[in-house]
Amino acid sequence: MDAIEAIMTRRSVRSFGDEPVSDEDAEIVLRAAMAAPSATNEQPWHFVVVRDRAVLERLSRTTPYARPLAAAPLGLVVCADKRAVRYPGFWVIDCAAAIENALVAAHAIGLGGVWIGVHPVPPFRAAVRRVVGLPGRMVPHSLVALGHPQRVPGPADRFDPDRLHPDRW
Amino acid sequence: MDAIEAIMTRRSVRSFGDEPVSDEDAEIVLRAAMAAPSATNEQPWHFVVVRDRAVLERLSRTTPYARPLAAAPLGLVVCADKRAVRYPGFWVIDCAAAIENALVAAHAIGLGGVWIGVHPVPPFRAAVRRVVGLPGRMVPHSLVALGHPQRVPGPADRFDPDRLHPDRW
Repeated sequence: MDAIEAIMTRRSVRSFGDEPVSDEDAEIVLRAAMAAPSATNEQPWHFVVVRDRAVLERLSRTTPYARPLAAAPLGLVVCADKRAVRYPGFWVIDCAAAIENALVAAHAIGLGGVWIGVHPVPPFRAAVRRVVGLPGRMVPHSLVALGHPQRVPGPADRFDPDRLHPDRW
Repeated sequence: MDAIEAIMTRRSVRSFGDEPVSDEDAEIVLRAAMAAPSATNEQPWHFVVVRDRAVLERLSRTTPYARPLAAAPLGLVVCADKRAVRYPGFWVIDCAAAIENALVAAHAIGLGGVWIGVHPVPPFRAAVRRVVGLPGRMVPHSLVALGHPQRVPGPADRFDPDRLHPDRW
């Protein structure tokens, strides 16, 4: 799929067919995630790649928005290694860039997904940490549910010229 | 350009030719940015779109990494409206997703760009706020320098299987 088309037509997908996500497709998505830029190229990200139905079920109860994981063939727990970061705070931004790459790549190869926020909400973080057993140095950032879309939502036009300000505010 | 290719071959570009970025190309990039997902679809982003050389020059001195703006035909100040956000903290992640879309789209249409971090560093934020006259409710997130690349860097392979953890940490 063309890059601009992939970016412009990607929508959140929350319902998935039973078909599993192949290892090849999962790797395309994870390679896209790791191709993201990061502050001073620190690449602070780690990915718990979840196919175990019991773990997906438990993750689906970690935040009020995590329900799609209960029926997703693949879930990602995106987290960052706090120990590895020289510039505090940028890991939040770096992981977000990685996730957006992953979602656009997933859409481009016919998968669908939804981004489920975890950081910076302390109870969401604690719940995710518990389910996948993250050590203290790892901070959970977000969850991603991935699979073959049950239906592909039409594109949304979010362009708003009022958000553009020439040269100065 | 193919979506996966665009994601996998995008690199930071810090040196630009003199050719301006057309309004059409700038709009493709900004549309891509605004197509990003955001927490509860809040779309907290605003973009100061800078072509004025004096403003670009002043922006290039707001952080130690902002120098590429001095010679870029186009700069973006990505910021968020704190007033608009129901879920504090997610604007940081939302703006990052928008910027990654913008950078992938720019690369896909033959432009190049570099992401320059501002938030969460207080002196960087204050300096950017001053240069473009942001009101108090607006938080500067990042700068982006865009233009026609003087040379297109080869792709980087950042894939690291040690960052993948099956099912649990």
